Amino acid sequence: MSDTREPMSVGRLEAFSDGVFAIAITLLVLEIRLPAGEGDLLDKLAHLWPSYLAYVISFLLIGMIWMNHHRMFHHIRRVDGTLLGLNVLLLMSVSFLPFPTHVLAETLHDRHDSQTAAAFYGVVLVIGGVFYNAVWCYASIGHRLLGDTITPDEARTLRIRWGMGPVLYLVATLLGLWSAAASLVLYILLLVFYFFDLRPRRAGSAPTP
Amino acid sequence: MSDTREPMSVGRLEAFSDGVFAIAITLLVLEIRLPAGEGDLLDKLAHLWPSYLAYVISFLLIGMIWMNHHRMFHHIRRVDGTLLGLNVLLLMSVSFLPFPTHVLAETLHDRHDSQTAAAFYGVVLVIGGVFYNAVWCYASIGHRLLGDTITPDEARTLRIRWGMGPVLYLVATLLGLWSAAASLVLYILLLVFYFFDLRPRRAGSAPTP
Amino acid sequence: MSDTREPMSVGRLEAFSDGVFAIAITLLVLEIRLPAGEGDLLDKLAHLWPSYLAYVISFLLIGMIWMNHHRMFHHIRRVDGTLLGLNVLLLMSVSFLPFPTHVLAETLHDRHDSQTAAAFYGVVLVIGGVFYNAVWCYASIGHRLLGDTITPDEARTLRIRWGMGPVLYLVATLLGLWSAAASLVLYILLLVFYFFDLRPRRAGSAPTP
Amino acid sequence: MSDTREPMSVGRLEAFSDGVFAIAITLLVLEIRLPAGEGDLLDKLAHLWPSYLAYVISFLLIGMIWMNHHRMFHHIRRVDGTLLGLNVLLLMSVSFLPFPTHVLAETLHDRHDSQTAAAFYGVVLVIGGVFYNAVWCYASIGHRLLGDTITPDEARTLRIRWGMGPVLYLVATLLGLWSAAASLVLYILLLVFYFFDLRPRRAGSAPTP
Repeated sequence: MSDTREPMSVGRLEAFSDGVFAIAITLLVLEIRLPAGEGDLLDKLAHLWPSYLAYVISFLLIGMIWMNHHRMFHHIRRVDGTLLGLNVLLLMSVSFLPFPTHVLAETLHDRHDSQTAAAFYGVVLVIGGVFYNAVWCYASIGHRLLGDTITPDEARTLRIRWGMGPVLYLVATLLGLWSAAASLVLYILLLVFYFFDLRPRRAGSAPTP
Repeated sequence: MSDTREPMSVGRLEAFSDGVFAIAITLLVLEIRLPAGEGDLLDKLAHLWPSYLAYVISFLLIGMIWMNHHRMFHHIRRVDGTLLGLNVLLLMSVSFLPFPTHVLAETLHDRHDSQTAAAFYGVVLVIGGVFYNAVWCYASIGHRLLGDTITPDEARTLRIRWGMGPVLYLVATLLGLWSAAASLVLYILLLVFYFFDLRPRRAGSAPTP
Repeated sequence: MSDTREPMSVGRLEAFSDGVFAIAITLLVLEIRLPAGEGDLLDKLAHLWPSYLAYVISFLLIGMIWMNHHRMFHHIRRVDGTLLGLNVLLLMSVSFLPFPTHVLAETLHDRHDSQTAAAFYGVVLVIGGVFYNAVWCYASIGHRLLGDTITPDEARTLRIRWGMGPVLYLVATLLGLWSAAASLVLYILLLVFYFFDLRPRRAGSAPTP
Repeated sequence: MSDTREPMSVGRLEAFSDGVFAIAITLLVLEIRLPAGEGDLLDKLAHLWPSYLAYVISFLLIGMIWMNHHRMFHHIRRVDGTLLGLNVLLLMSVSFLPFPTHVLAETLHDRHDSQTAAAFYGVVLVIGGVFYNAVWCYASIGHRLLGDTITPDEARTLRIRWGMGPVLYLVATLLGLWSAAASLVLYILLLVFYFFDLRPRRAGSAPTP
């Protein structure tokens, strides 16, 4: 049956992944709910600040993962079944994020519960980060599925760089057990650093064709 | 009016189907809801384990159906109205899965209801499997809509292989009437076997162009 | 500023429309909710039959509109602002359908309310049908935006054929005021006729390239 | 690591943005909920008119932003990290709109709360408008990322024209503090003007290729 085991194209895998990223990021807003009951609307809206904060952090984190995912697949030239399976596990973790985001937003007013919620949020990110790195390690070790847009040395540099992700998320998880606020600050620092780092740095950089 | 009955392109049908798969798989998380009321958050989160389990199983099952759907349409070169209609029925079954997933997650703590829920979940999979096979049988019998990427013999092999799907789901349904846990174990075994089977096996396999 | 008024490509408009169709069709399942409270699960699931019925009818109706939309845009070669605006109004109507579907499902057990719900459902379809025909009439009258895949006579035939849609929906609306069941039967007949009609009829039909 | 900092293609950024727009616009319907409790269905449906109104306005506003976004990216030929980041912030604002839409719909029956809700709705649009203009200013000042489909003068004209957006939304916000109805009328006027303006005006306009 070898001829029927044709591999999936990189393009279609990316399109499907993009779809999942776009949906997960847009579903985040559904987790924000106006409290029922009496009361001034302005008070209610102000009281929802944890929801807005959690929305912004999760939106930007998923946006960051999406951009990294694109960068990763820019270098991947072939897809095999293992890569497909690992990528599905990565998407599964990203798609799950609206739930811990909701839990975090709901409990940020409560000191004890917010620690649990921050750790829960962090654990989901750790799992996602591990699957992310599993995809890249599988694709890049031995240059298994890569093309010539990247050298083995550069691929290794990315393994180290991206490998720091789950470590950082683990730190945020442990920090969250002590203070949810502290772990959120760490996510914000991570995002600021990431988006700042996106800025072009080299004067002589070639334009995109 | 024959000239206005132009067929739909395979590419557009695949893109639409991919969209539906991506959305259905991502909507699964919306069915996980934090219980209201008093109580420690950690207890609540731990108590939700059936939701996590149902989420993972449904996510991977839909992922598996999506990958098989891609493999199927890789060989389909033409689309006619019957194929379109059968594919819509298949998508309708897949899109429905978030509901039985939610029902299963909500009742897994209760022995009696979980049997009903497991059977309900299984029946939806059986229906989806039947439509899946209907698409493939219609396209492949007599090589009706296939191209030359597959031989009639290989197409028949796939009919037998994929035809086992609804049979297996029927077994899981009947098993669920006795024990929801047993039917879940069967789904997990199916997924493990499937993703294990995805791994490349032949040393001489040609790389994807 | 004439140079900045560049038109949108047909391909991008279709891709956006496809996305909206795929999302609206998949969101339908979110409107099915397990009743809270005590009771046997099997009874609850059985009691939800109006939800399943409404789900199937709406899914197939949106699927039908999507397929017709594809057929329509197959012949449209240019996009201008009016067409864009009319198409947005069409998408707005289709995206709204999950709500009347939910209303219909919730009230089908109640004779009086189900009549209101069936009429409400029908009115939304009438509005959608009017916008659908507005798109086609605007594009096809005087062959304004069409290419050479269709003759003016064939375009007129489609205007008549598609123009029957809102008339039929209006009949279903009025019928619903008398009996919701009767209007549902009419939708089912329409769908059966439509999907039956999709089947290839001509022996000498040329294969899709 | 310069070789691994490859820029994202404009096409993929647009496809991702389109996905987010399509999902956000379709999620709007989920914010419409049938009130629970006793009562005639027709009364309930009629009582929901603020939801229908808010749905239509938000749907058309997002549709308008999407069309402008397309027009903007038609002229952008290169993507760098800053543009990516600003675009993510824009998408974050648009994806948030279903929430203020829901708040507005829920409170339009109450004079005091509706003023708060209209201002809240307006503030989100102001933020989105600022990010929209940030994307365009960053891309167009000094013709930084533009191609030759637009002259620097035309790009400046668009900066002025689009720069009026957040100003207008700010006016609607302030107006909303006085009367929600007045701010809604302003949005409707804006939409009517926009869609009217889309109509082709020049007899000698060249057809789209």
